[in-house]
Amino acid sequence: MNTAKSTLVACCQLAPKIGDLAYNRSLTERAIRSAALRGAQVVVLPELVQSGYLFADRNEALALAETRDGPTLRLWQALARELNLVVVGGFCEHLGGDDLANSAALIDAQGVRAVYRKAHLWDAEKEIFTAGSEAPPVIETVHGRIGMLICYDLEFPEWVRLPALAGADLLCAPVNWPDGPRPQTERPAEVLRVQANASVNRLFIAACDRYGHERGVGWVQGSVIVDADGYPVAGPAEQGGEQILLATLNLAEARNKRISERNDLHRDRRPHLYGMDSSLD
Amino acid sequence: MNTAKSTLVACCQLAPKIGDLAYNRSLTERAIRSAALRGAQVVVLPELVQSGYLFADRNEALALAETRDGPTLRLWQALARELNLVVVGGFCEHLGGDDLANSAALIDAQGVRAVYRKAHLWDAEKEIFTAGSEAPPVIETVHGRIGMLICYDLEFPEWVRLPALAGADLLCAPVNWPDGPRPQTERPAEVLRVQANASVNRLFIAACDRYGHERGVGWVQGSVIVDADGYPVAGPAEQGGEQILLATLNLAEARNKRISERNDLHRDRRPHLYGMDSSLD
Repeated sequence: MNTAKSTLVACCQLAPKIGDLAYNRSLTERAIRSAALRGAQVVVLPELVQSGYLFADRNEALALAETRDGPTLRLWQALARELNLVVVGGFCEHLGGDDLANSAALIDAQGVRAVYRKAHLWDAEKEIFTAGSEAPPVIETVHGRIGMLICYDLEFPEWVRLPALAGADLLCAPVNWPDGPRPQTERPAEVLRVQANASVNRLFIAACDRYGHERGVGWVQGSVIVDADGYPVAGPAEQGGEQILLATLNLAEARNKRISERNDLHRDRRPHLYGMDSSLD
Repeated sequence: MNTAKSTLVACCQLAPKIGDLAYNRSLTERAIRSAALRGAQVVVLPELVQSGYLFADRNEALALAETRDGPTLRLWQALARELNLVVVGGFCEHLGGDDLANSAALIDAQGVRAVYRKAHLWDAEKEIFTAGSEAPPVIETVHGRIGMLICYDLEFPEWVRLPALAGADLLCAPVNWPDGPRPQTERPAEVLRVQANASVNRLFIAACDRYGHERGVGWVQGSVIVDADGYPVAGPAEQGGEQILLATLNLAEARNKRISERNDLHRDRRPHLYGMDSSLD
């Protein structure tokens, strides 16, 4: 990785329609092309943007699920190749049999580089999905090392730590943040947690939220791209509707974990005191 | 603990004078009495408020250090007994021989209940102090279970997790946050990390910063008391100088880690995937 190189990262905050796979494919194609026209090299899409989120039941989810060879990931692969960019997006994955996962794919010009399955399931997702048990992958791309995780995973700093320790420069996080009450003048805690996760690891995070009212639920619409100190460089959108956030990042900055003459955020960890296996020391 | 009880918590953002032990004792006495007059039941003081922070060298720190039987902790014990409150404050601890620790004491009407030694040392502290290796203690008080940690410890979510899992309702964090550059409109990352640590554990945190220019260093002055959802209920003070922040907290709320019908922030953890010893599962 050229240490002076900058990378243009986009979060496409979209409003998919639950159950309308063709509409959602077309929506993501328009968003990816639009981001590419503006120079984006990494494009992040929301969680479950392929299917929508609030399934009536498991059967509905099964009917909407796709494999990694399905039409949505084939489309994203064609676009990644044609436009020479990285796409990270969420989809309802058919695992085989009746098993489903809340997944995200990282796709570049080479094809599908990794599929990640959400390990921490939110509320009714527990009735529908099998939780993943594989750590968030970290993929070497032409732009740097990119990791993925999904929504509620971000509330477990131990989980975020794994791709950070594995060398991720940028974490891409497809999310669907259901809106809820909070003090009117406060930035949503969902966004704060993204900021804190970035700052304690000195890495970049691009969290892509969704828009649209779906079966009675609204969304934070809090898409945000934060720098390695944890400060937003684009967004948070906050109630901004459908939009594309763009930020130019020097991902190489994440390789330096030093924050004072004698402090390095990763080397200062004391894993044996945290009850960690020594293999992670 | 009465589940409907409320507790008045104070953070006394003070400006100790480096090396002036008598002044600092008097300063903390005035602050504790003032907080008590306003009804405070738990009073948090800054890190190293007994001595000041920026020691010229190890010898200066040694000359200023006290044991838990020293005049500062004796004063705080007398005040805690007289005013019937909990004091959490930082001091330069003489461990015996030439060894020093950056410590915090939790004192109530019963006396010194616990001394905690900072486990993650910041910059030149590494030349002066021995890092603690004992997990942050959690003390059962008449107001609920109170834990302690110190400043840079807060940048290690795995460390904050230990007292949280041990049942802390409130974490008291004496801090000295050196000021640094950040985007002008942004809340300091130090404060954000407090908020995020509270929200991922559903517990209260009272972080008490300091004021005053000391040997060329200024401070964030970001004292803050946050609720179990991670939102500030007092502060952040932000450049507010010397002051006492007060917040009424229903600490019992921290006993409930549920955040949706099917989600519990602690039970949803998957420690075996994080590389944790199973004893912490």
